[in-house]
Amino acid sequence: MKFGGTSVANEERIERAASLIVDEVRRGKQVAVVVSAMGKTTDDLLALAKGVNANAERRELDMLISTGEQVTASLLAMAVSAKGIPANSFTGWQAGLQTESVHGNARIENVEPKKVNKILESGGVAVITGFQGIDQEGELTTLGRGGSDTSAVAIAIALEASCCDIYTDVEGVFTTDPRVISDARKLLEISYDEMLELANLGAGVLHPRAIEFAKNHNLTLRVRPAHVDGAGTVIKEEIELENNLIVRGVAFENEIVRITVMYDVPYNGSLANVFTKLAEHHINVDIIVQTIMEGEQPSVSFSIKNEDFAEAVNVLEMNKHELGYRRADFEVGLAKVSIVGSGMVSNPGVAAKMFDTLRNASVPIKMVSTSEIKISVVIPGSDTEKAVAVLHKEFSLANVY
Amino acid sequence: MKFGGTSVANEERIERAASLIVDEVRRGKQVAVVVSAMGKTTDDLLALAKGVNANAERRELDMLISTGEQVTASLLAMAVSAKGIPANSFTGWQAGLQTESVHGNARIENVEPKKVNKILESGGVAVITGFQGIDQEGELTTLGRGGSDTSAVAIAIALEASCCDIYTDVEGVFTTDPRVISDARKLLEISYDEMLELANLGAGVLHPRAIEFAKNHNLTLRVRPAHVDGAGTVIKEEIELENNLIVRGVAFENEIVRITVMYDVPYNGSLANVFTKLAEHHINVDIIVQTIMEGEQPSVSFSIKNEDFAEAVNVLEMNKHELGYRRADFEVGLAKVSIVGSGMVSNPGVAAKMFDTLRNASVPIKMVSTSEIKISVVIPGSDTEKAVAVLHKEFSLANVY
Repeated sequence: MKFGGTSVANEERIERAASLIVDEVRRGKQVAVVVSAMGKTTDDLLALAKGVNANAERRELDMLISTGEQVTASLLAMAVSAKGIPANSFTGWQAGLQTESVHGNARIENVEPKKVNKILESGGVAVITGFQGIDQEGELTTLGRGGSDTSAVAIAIALEASCCDIYTDVEGVFTTDPRVISDARKLLEISYDEMLELANLGAGVLHPRAIEFAKNHNLTLRVRPAHVDGAGTVIKEEIELENNLIVRGVAFENEIVRITVMYDVPYNGSLANVFTKLAEHHINVDIIVQTIMEGEQPSVSFSIKNEDFAEAVNVLEMNKHELGYRRADFEVGLAKVSIVGSGMVSNPGVAAKMFDTLRNASVPIKMVSTSEIKISVVIPGSDTEKAVAVLHKEFSLANVY
Repeated sequence: MKFGGTSVANEERIERAASLIVDEVRRGKQVAVVVSAMGKTTDDLLALAKGVNANAERRELDMLISTGEQVTASLLAMAVSAKGIPANSFTGWQAGLQTESVHGNARIENVEPKKVNKILESGGVAVITGFQGIDQEGELTTLGRGGSDTSAVAIAIALEASCCDIYTDVEGVFTTDPRVISDARKLLEISYDEMLELANLGAGVLHPRAIEFAKNHNLTLRVRPAHVDGAGTVIKEEIELENNLIVRGVAFENEIVRITVMYDVPYNGSLANVFTKLAEHHINVDIIVQTIMEGEQPSVSFSIKNEDFAEAVNVLEMNKHELGYRRADFEVGLAKVSIVGSGMVSNPGVAAKMFDTLRNASVPIKMVSTSEIKISVVIPGSDTEKAVAVLHKEFSLANVY
């Protein structure tokens, strides 16, 4: 059972999490729990750090922020214990979560949960700090944002758990964001690959690395609400297609910028150079559209997040000579809307249906990107809600039970 | 260098501590630092714990409160680093501070500061969490209130440090509490034994266990102000008697209760039984006065702290039959005033001078207790300030330079 920051944000929610844990134990389950830091603790700690050193070492930031989960873990263990079930908390290193020697974004290398197994075998509950581990030198490391999901999955795999329940502040995985589309429906099941696309597309319920990890070890995940009773959404390999839905979710993301870089004819370099340069500056490029038609000016367009825009423009400016382009232009205030579904691969015409639907709603398409189970379009940000609504309707997502 | 909670209570004070550390490094010193939790952090964490479990296990409380020092240590390391001196923070276990397997009040068994030595040798600063260690099972332990002083001394000894500077919110060790007696003077030097008496007497500048530890290893301590420049007070074995002062400090403590237990004649049991019983209930008895005069009713009087009063009365009531006493009475609202000085042992008449001084000031003496370097009296709490003032004057303490 993994509880995210909002599910343990205060005393009352910690009590609620403890009740959910005790219920599982009373049902005869052995329970290991992974927790995030309470509410905004991590941000508060980072603000403290900024106050004393704007460029603090990642090692020291790891020392600082890893305290957040330790506070939650001990409080939750106390709360479980108060309900009559023995419980102990463990730091990442006490739980045997070993990572590579990278601070701030370490990958898990191995989990040796000896202490955890010991308490589980004695009938008690283990409450483990998510998000953190230890490297071979005995240094504390953290796994990066969303790392608690990954901790939970890694520990579940090491414990040979039958299931990993991710408790969160939503009722499960929805066909689209219910805050935007009132017809949005909760899915009973979703495949790892579909969930991966939704996670990467900003649905934000679950960290992609955690889903990949679960997929590789065929561990069943459940996204469940912590604040109300509810079965949530099961994430596993083979799913039954509810109502034969081909498309199972519409994801969207605002604050997208398109940049187009144009070259003179003839151009002798590689259009990829621009992406190498952007990657060196840790700018994440999403959709890429490249056109090289004979006799025409070659150009490459790509989308990035708004927050990276200033830096990207700077990188392009600084390296204009080296990159050898003639000019670059950009369009801000865009959005990305995507439809996701494993059934797409065996159902041709889904893309055409998507484009038709958007055209009929007068939504212009700026860029397109496709994978086997996903089609993404970049559109004006002002059209996002309309586009999601018509796609959600067209692909019958409101009919999911 | 050890910084207490008030000396690292906020960003500004952490900056100040960092400056003091960097100054020492620039003077060519290798510096290891031990820190407490910021301000009231430990109390805040304990309040959180109480919210979820009023009877939380000590193990879990240790997991919880040990985060406090980790936050300070990482922030202080960042602050030092921002001033151009490399610095890393270490938890108690990373610094190799091994304790017995007791939660909440563990004693240090061994210190193996490999990681600390490594960074010191490379010219960097080690910032270590005080108050905490690890037992042989890999469980986190804490040393009890004031344990950061003990951590600092233990680590200084393990590092073969030339000196251990305890930075605090006072300017040093005073002849008495300057908040009460404006004539109070800071001492340049004080012996371990004198400091031990003052620490035990509630002067509260330094934890007694830390002083004993330093005495046993002949480690020079300095109590220094963190908030202003100042040499503080040196604590070591052999001290020069400033101005040939026989008495070097007047300590006092309010909120004292006297309990007297009276027995019938003849009484066949041991008067010590009452103390065994109180000790079983963790009630700390301070001064004991016992009178067994032939033909008279035997009685025993003792002083305890006000906070233990209700429990002590309860213990006496519950065990009246077993203890075999006739009746008990008590007097609340008392205070203990003590004069301390190594020179006393070779200067007879100090006690008489003390009693005379108090009698001339019309301060009644309820109980007396003496050691080689200390005389304590129990008096009415309303007379505390007057008693301290006349003793401070009589023993020329205001003349210390």
